[in-house]
Amino acid sequence: MIYTDIVLGVDIGGTNTKLGYVDRQGRCLADEVMATRSDEPPAVFFRRLHEQAERLRTTLVPSHRLLGIGIGAPNANYYKGTIEHPPNLSWVWVDIRAELSPYYQVPIAATNDANATALGEMLFGAAQGMRDFIVITLGTGLGSGIVVNGEMVYGSTGFAGEIGHTIVDPAGRACGCGRRGCLEVYVSATGLRLTVLELLARSDAPSPLRDLAFEELTSKLIFEAAQDGDPVALEGFEFTGDLLGRKLADAVAFTSPEAIFLFGGLAAAGELLFKPVRRALEENLLNIYRGTVKLLPSGVAEGKAAILGASALIWNELAKGQPDRP
Amino acid sequence: MIYTDIVLGVDIGGTNTKLGYVDRQGRCLADEVMATRSDEPPAVFFRRLHEQAERLRTTLVPSHRLLGIGIGAPNANYYKGTIEHPPNLSWVWVDIRAELSPYYQVPIAATNDANATALGEMLFGAAQGMRDFIVITLGTGLGSGIVVNGEMVYGSTGFAGEIGHTIVDPAGRACGCGRRGCLEVYVSATGLRLTVLELLARSDAPSPLRDLAFEELTSKLIFEAAQDGDPVALEGFEFTGDLLGRKLADAVAFTSPEAIFLFGGLAAAGELLFKPVRRALEENLLNIYRGTVKLLPSGVAEGKAAILGASALIWNELAKGQPDRP
Repeated sequence: MIYTDIVLGVDIGGTNTKLGYVDRQGRCLADEVMATRSDEPPAVFFRRLHEQAERLRTTLVPSHRLLGIGIGAPNANYYKGTIEHPPNLSWVWVDIRAELSPYYQVPIAATNDANATALGEMLFGAAQGMRDFIVITLGTGLGSGIVVNGEMVYGSTGFAGEIGHTIVDPAGRACGCGRRGCLEVYVSATGLRLTVLELLARSDAPSPLRDLAFEELTSKLIFEAAQDGDPVALEGFEFTGDLLGRKLADAVAFTSPEAIFLFGGLAAAGELLFKPVRRALEENLLNIYRGTVKLLPSGVAEGKAAILGASALIWNELAKGQPDRP
Repeated sequence: MIYTDIVLGVDIGGTNTKLGYVDRQGRCLADEVMATRSDEPPAVFFRRLHEQAERLRTTLVPSHRLLGIGIGAPNANYYKGTIEHPPNLSWVWVDIRAELSPYYQVPIAATNDANATALGEMLFGAAQGMRDFIVITLGTGLGSGIVVNGEMVYGSTGFAGEIGHTIVDPAGRACGCGRRGCLEVYVSATGLRLTVLELLARSDAPSPLRDLAFEELTSKLIFEAAQDGDPVALEGFEFTGDLLGRKLADAVAFTSPEAIFLFGGLAAAGELLFKPVRRALEENLLNIYRGTVKLLPSGVAEGKAAILGASALIWNELAKGQPDRP
């Protein structure tokens, strides 16, 4: 009997948790969404996760083998398998392996969502075969995953790769991390909204965005206004992209990547964002790096990327032990 | 007959070139200095280097085996074995292996001086056993070598690790690289001198440093003035250390090192520099990194560090192939 090897990929978000079964080729065979409800204790969440996952498993062909569980979650620590003081979950400290041990005897690995996305890009996306690259995820915040010499950079703490929390302006905007001027309060969906607010305050240019309260002013509406030629929205994208390009030029001075991938909601704005990023990146590179870095969109379909990335944690570990690494 | 295995370590500088023979334990058995004279063609330099090295070799015990040659040089490329557009040498492009092939049949490896210093720290200094660390070399400029997962970060180009050329202020001081506001024009011997000049211009505090022309105002004199309690010199060190600490906090967000080593002339100022760096580093770290990074002086004696580091290029390659890696 021939078995289909599968990995359970789980992406724990502030509101929803995505789970799905992924095969070695990066195909998502079945997936589902459940509410995270982090106001309930972690034990309740992981029991529900197990029940949901088992239900989903019955929809697969019977001849499969579960090889492991990969989990992407905010502030998840690769070395310890913990979630520590996650910014948008009510839990303080979760030992993922201990929580899942009553239900599963397979290997379990965890990391933050941006690192999981980078692993997904490496195994199943546009970074296949690359040894040095960076993935920037642009959602509510700015996450990053750094790969060096073909390996994920976890650092001594397991928390490496927080480019969103490098400082743009020490006296700048307040960040959720308690400091000021972090890159992610400028370059993210939230950052774009704040930038547009500042631009509206500073100029008297007419703009349909003036009619919106801040809570209504989504990055999607700003994108639509920019497509309609609204100068404030266009300047917002220009400012955001320029700043990201400058900071990516600094990032290149650290690890000299072959490519930088932009991923997530804001990256879907396409050339509105990519054009100023590409220009500022190239203009601000140190001479020895000029012309060496590709700026690319993600090669993983956004809908399944979180699940694929989480599963890649396990697929990558399994591939390491094999000479015929895919 | 028992042979002593040795590696020739060479550090090519703008004015002088240091060369020496180093054994597996990191002992420098014999060393020497020769003028670089980069106004002459590379072929002349490498012939002189070979002659000098052979002369020096006759001073060793006869029963030795030369296992390789490691070379540290500005803008030296690890992958290609080239020196490309070095900032303080007249040569434009040098193929080191081709130049040395008439004289030697042993493995030859090259990298820039800061990377060589980091490898020396890993094999023979205070970073022994560490898998993730950063070395900052503070001389005329600011060099850096980054180690991740126990391996030197060369990146896709072979030129990774130029933290000195990340941007502090896009409208700031002119840098030798052609851009503005690079970290190294603030944090380096040169940077300290420029900072003191600015401080003298801005205040009317009496200071013995006012009596000196800029060419006379060395970092050594500033250090001595600071030790004598001169407020301008003290403020110069404070500013320099604070800025370095802030930028190192950003560096931690990339690779989350266990330790950061400060090396070189300016680091010899001890607590005058370390104290503000340590304070600013810790104050500016993202919460998940606080208390996780050691700030340390180099554990390699400065006089021989360049030669030891260059030799470590070869010793490290040899150690990789062996299970009993030192």
